[in-house]
Amino acid sequence: MAGKTCNILVTGANRGLGLEIIKQLAEKPCPGRRIFAGCRDPSKAEGLEKLSKKHSGVIHIIRLDVGDNASVLEAAKQVSSIVGGDGLNLLVNNAAMMYYSNMKESVPSEMENTFNVNVMGPMRMTKEFLPLLQMAVKKSSESSMSCRRAAVINISGMMGCIEQVPATYGLFPFVGLPYRVSKAALNMMTVCNAEEFKGDGILFTLLHPGWVRTDMGGPDGKIEAAESVSGMLGVIEKLTEEHNGAFLNYKGQPMSW
Amino acid sequence: MAGKTCNILVTGANRGLGLEIIKQLAEKPCPGRRIFAGCRDPSKAEGLEKLSKKHSGVIHIIRLDVGDNASVLEAAKQVSSIVGGDGLNLLVNNAAMMYYSNMKESVPSEMENTFNVNVMGPMRMTKEFLPLLQMAVKKSSESSMSCRRAAVINISGMMGCIEQVPATYGLFPFVGLPYRVSKAALNMMTVCNAEEFKGDGILFTLLHPGWVRTDMGGPDGKIEAAESVSGMLGVIEKLTEEHNGAFLNYKGQPMSW
Repeated sequence: MAGKTCNILVTGANRGLGLEIIKQLAEKPCPGRRIFAGCRDPSKAEGLEKLSKKHSGVIHIIRLDVGDNASVLEAAKQVSSIVGGDGLNLLVNNAAMMYYSNMKESVPSEMENTFNVNVMGPMRMTKEFLPLLQMAVKKSSESSMSCRRAAVINISGMMGCIEQVPATYGLFPFVGLPYRVSKAALNMMTVCNAEEFKGDGILFTLLHPGWVRTDMGGPDGKIEAAESVSGMLGVIEKLTEEHNGAFLNYKGQPMSW
Repeated sequence: MAGKTCNILVTGANRGLGLEIIKQLAEKPCPGRRIFAGCRDPSKAEGLEKLSKKHSGVIHIIRLDVGDNASVLEAAKQVSSIVGGDGLNLLVNNAAMMYYSNMKESVPSEMENTFNVNVMGPMRMTKEFLPLLQMAVKKSSESSMSCRRAAVINISGMMGCIEQVPATYGLFPFVGLPYRVSKAALNMMTVCNAEEFKGDGILFTLLHPGWVRTDMGGPDGKIEAAESVSGMLGVIEKLTEEHNGAFLNYKGQPMSW
C-alpha cells in the first residue's frame, strides 16, 4: 500500500497476519503515516517491539484487548490524542481467537468467548473509533469511498462461508464450531455496517486472507503470511464504493456467503 | 403433521409462532404423542395454559429459559423423566428475542443477550437433549432421516440471509443488527450441526417462517401465524436426509445464505 492512507490501526498485531501487516505497511513508508499496532500485552510482543524500534515514530504500539469494553475505550482515547483532528483512515479488525471443538465437545463458554472477541471485538472497535473515522472523512480531500478516506476492513475467512460448509467441514476438521459461527456472524455484521454507514462515507469490506501458515492456520497452510498480506494490502488499496459490503479473498476475488 | 412424530418439544411456546405450533400439533392428535411446550414463565403463559387444559395429557408445559444453562439442564431432566426410553423425536428451537437497534444505537449487552438466546439457546438445547434425540433414533423403526425418527428444526428467517441485506436493510429498518447477526450465526451453527450429527442419524434443518403478524413481526406482516405454522409443519413432515443442513421457507422453497 504505497498510497496516502495516513492513519492506520491494526488489531491483533503481535503475531501472525497482524504483525505481517504492520511490517509491510512500515516498509513502504508514506510521509506522515502513523501505524497503530494494537495488542493485548505489549510487554510480550517482541516481534512488534523490534519492528517499532526499527520504524521509530511511525509504529505506535497500543495496549488493546478487543474483548474488553474498557480497553477499547482507552485505546481510542490514546489514538485520538496522537492523531488529533486527522482522525483514523483505516481500521483493520484482525484480532481473532479459535477453539478446536465441535458441538459435542464444546462448552458454552467457548462459544461466548469466541463471539466476544471475533464479533463483539470488531463491534466495539467500530463503535469507539467511529468519531475518528468520521473525522478522517471530513478531513479527506477524496470525495468517494476508499482506504485513504475512511475504511473498516474486517478479516473474516472461508470458514465463515455457510455455503461451503459441507466441503470445508471435511477438509478442515480442526476448525472449531465457535470460530465458524463467529465468522458468519461477523460477515452479517459487516454487511449491515456497510449499509448503515454508507451515508457517513465509511467503507466496510470483508477479507479472506487465504489459508495461511500462521499459529492459527497451522503448518499445512497453502501460503505464507507475507503473500497473504501483500495480496490483502493490494486489494485494500484498490477498494472503492462498489466494494462496500463485499467479501473478497486476498487476490481480490469475491467469496460466497 | 398427521404423521407419527411422537415426542415433540417446542421452545418459546407461550406466544406467537411457538404457541401456534403447539395448537396445531395438538389439534391433529396422534396416538401416544407428547407435546412439550417450553416457556420461561408458565404462570404468565395463559394461552398455553388454556390449550394444555383442552388437550390434557398431551401438552406438557415445561419451565424453560434457553438463555440459561441450568434451566435447559433441568428441562432436559424433566422431559427425560416423562418420555423414558422413547426419547425425543422432534426439537423445534423457536425461542428468540429481538432488539430494534442498529450499530450506532446498540450497546454491547444487546448483542450479547441476543446471541445468548438466539444462538446459545439452540446450542444448549441441542447439547442437553442430544441423549434423548439419540435414544429416539435407536427406538425408531425408520432407517432414514425424518422428523419421525429424530430432527432438530431451528427457526431462522430471511433476516439471517447475508446476501439479502442490501434489500432487507431498506425494507425492514426496524429489525435490529443483533437479531440479523444472531440469525446468520444460527444458520452457520445449524449447517455445521447437520454435518456433525449426520452419523447419529439426526436431521438438522433451518426454517424461515415468512413475515408473520406476531409480536415480533409486527402488524404489517404478510401472513398470519396460522398460515406460517401450517406451512412449516407440512414442510417438517416431508423432510428427508436431502434436507439435512437445508434452509427452507414455510412453503418448502430453499432460501439463500
